[in-house]
Amino acid sequence: MPEIFEALDPPSRLLMGPGPINADPRVLRAMAMPLLGQFDPMFTGYMNETMALLRQLYQTENHWSFLINGTARAGIEAVLTSIISPGEGVLVPVAGRFGELMCEIAERCGAKVHAIETDWGGVFEPDRIEDAMKRFKPRLLATVHGDTSTTMAQPLDDLGEICRRHDALLYVDATATLGGMTVPVDDWGLDAVSGGLQKCLSGPPGSSPITFNDRVAELVGRRKHIERGIRPDGYDPGEGALIQSNYFDLPMLMDYWSESRLNHHTESTSMLYAARECVRIVLNDGLEERFVRHEVTSRAMIAGVRAMGLELFGDISHKMHNITGIMIPDGVDGDAVIRDMLQNFAIEIGTSFGPLKGRIWRIGAMGYNCRKDAVLTTLAAFEATLRPRGYAAPPGAGVDAALNVYNTA
Amino acid sequence: MPEIFEALDPPSRLLMGPGPINADPRVLRAMAMPLLGQFDPMFTGYMNETMALLRQLYQTENHWSFLINGTARAGIEAVLTSIISPGEGVLVPVAGRFGELMCEIAERCGAKVHAIETDWGGVFEPDRIEDAMKRFKPRLLATVHGDTSTTMAQPLDDLGEICRRHDALLYVDATATLGGMTVPVDDWGLDAVSGGLQKCLSGPPGSSPITFNDRVAELVGRRKHIERGIRPDGYDPGEGALIQSNYFDLPMLMDYWSESRLNHHTESTSMLYAARECVRIVLNDGLEERFVRHEVTSRAMIAGVRAMGLELFGDISHKMHNITGIMIPDGVDGDAVIRDMLQNFAIEIGTSFGPLKGRIWRIGAMGYNCRKDAVLTTLAAFEATLRPRGYAAPPGAGVDAALNVYNTA
Repeated sequence: MPEIFEALDPPSRLLMGPGPINADPRVLRAMAMPLLGQFDPMFTGYMNETMALLRQLYQTENHWSFLINGTARAGIEAVLTSIISPGEGVLVPVAGRFGELMCEIAERCGAKVHAIETDWGGVFEPDRIEDAMKRFKPRLLATVHGDTSTTMAQPLDDLGEICRRHDALLYVDATATLGGMTVPVDDWGLDAVSGGLQKCLSGPPGSSPITFNDRVAELVGRRKHIERGIRPDGYDPGEGALIQSNYFDLPMLMDYWSESRLNHHTESTSMLYAARECVRIVLNDGLEERFVRHEVTSRAMIAGVRAMGLELFGDISHKMHNITGIMIPDGVDGDAVIRDMLQNFAIEIGTSFGPLKGRIWRIGAMGYNCRKDAVLTTLAAFEATLRPRGYAAPPGAGVDAALNVYNTA
Repeated sequence: MPEIFEALDPPSRLLMGPGPINADPRVLRAMAMPLLGQFDPMFTGYMNETMALLRQLYQTENHWSFLINGTARAGIEAVLTSIISPGEGVLVPVAGRFGELMCEIAERCGAKVHAIETDWGGVFEPDRIEDAMKRFKPRLLATVHGDTSTTMAQPLDDLGEICRRHDALLYVDATATLGGMTVPVDDWGLDAVSGGLQKCLSGPPGSSPITFNDRVAELVGRRKHIERGIRPDGYDPGEGALIQSNYFDLPMLMDYWSESRLNHHTESTSMLYAARECVRIVLNDGLEERFVRHEVTSRAMIAGVRAMGLELFGDISHKMHNITGIMIPDGVDGDAVIRDMLQNFAIEIGTSFGPLKGRIWRIGAMGYNCRKDAVLTTLAAFEATLRPRGYAAPPGAGVDAALNVYNTA
């Protein structure tokens, strides 16, 4: 007898962890739309519209702004594996788990990785990065914008110029900030950026929006290769090291996302619908309005947590606006609090990784969940959860302080 | 002013090409379900249920049956890049575009690829494959089951034994047949198999179900590596060449899909919901019933096309049951017929790739669209479309012949 299980019936949850967060209902609705063939003019029209929407989201004129069909780390790998030829130097500033991940992926792409490190909870001064650029002369500087493992956002505004001074490319993983904090790709001189849908864009994980400029397009274009079986007449195999992944080969993806529509993968129809709707919602709100909303929410969270007598984690002047790290007080079982929040209030919060596992809680308030009601409810539930677990905050103080920030914002 | 575009409104289409096809409405509904956190016990429960469903779909006892977060070719690359260490021999029988693709991907994974070729429209005799195994002594035989580019299905039932005789592993890309033709993984001795949702499983492209046995698990396990930033105490870096992709690293994915739940990517929530529902539907129908339905549909299509006086493509004794190749008659503009079908009837059919581009039409009838009404409607529309384009089939003959197959099935 086959074991078929019940129909899906996910329980109601308020997802206030580091992501995924609750998808916007409009995004869920978009995903339920009927499929189209990948070369249907309506569908290729949607592909082009998605490119135009992504350009606006990334505040860029970059023609090449499209989706990688995979989660956020698929976007990272597509950029790195297409840019890096074996043996090339890549500088990675590591201030958390996602800096470590960047090193891992770059290494697998054959890079000679130069990592510089700082304590988790801090960020890098531009001077320190420039010194390392001088010392290592890398082909690429690869950095994370918001590292959710530490809740810190690396300042990026000086890095584009530093990279140009040292003849290097600059790649930024903006998965955790995109749509919540400004990432002005052209103004900051970022050569390539990748993101994900499941944080401030209020979509499901599984599609990674990327953008890159002509400097990158030219570089990867020299490694262009067309698959056997679909090569046109007079095909020229090009020069440069073969990109070690077929799936993540940016020049092939450029052909697929151009008017030549040379077949590569079959675009993930429903995830494209989702991505298109995620970005439409952000642009409808207005980018600036979104950034302000996340900044005010961050202040409300900070005020609420402090009023509860809890200590914030890390260098608050560089805190990401969409996530807040809170030190777990001595004697409190952090995992039990996370469990109680889920079981009693259906609210998900998280801890972190590696050295911070069990040392901090992480509470997100981003995208669709970057709302006053979500923040206040979470703080109220947090207070009620902590008390029987051995930490008695002044009753009502957290919610009052957060509400006060909203009232005076 | 931002350019935000209209809300999604994909037009009604009957997708009778090589896939994607219309998703089952139940699958679309599943994708609109609310998200859960990736470590929420409800969600990890759904992950485990999905594994159990995939085992039944693949007719296997393999514990390792899970999803790669990407389209079908992501599944191919995950298997090949994790199995193949640089310089190892891989034998690929090439009888169409997806055989070529297998060579491409294997090459990028560092394999020494030995391709044997046969004309597009044919398949390989087991003897020919065994001869090549003797000559090249590959570590892996990698073959496509149904190559949609030619509409042929490679017989697989002898290959498992051949591989064991020659101490090689056997990997099969079953993207185009899974859920429509039988792929009894254990009975046929297939060591690893990958698929996609967008063909006979009636889902959207973007998630690739894979399965592999202990032979593969042991081999890739020797290449196991845990990411910096999440390594447990006493971590042992293992032996064997580092897998060149982080995203497609099977041992890491095994940790993520096991009770240790070691973080890797963030599982694509909505695509997992889709995959789970796709397989539930197939198992609810019954595997055998599904295979019979596709086989009868294939006979109806063959009878209909022949009654219209058109010629079928390739070796019909090895035709895939879910897709039919039709020679484009001399003097008929194949692309114009495809366009007219879409514009007048909202029915999508396709041509093929490379040497078959513009030489054949491909009409699919699979998964949700493997229905009598879809087949009869398509044949009626096809006849009406061909007439003004210079090919006059006997009026009504195609539909009558197909209906006769259904009535006597």
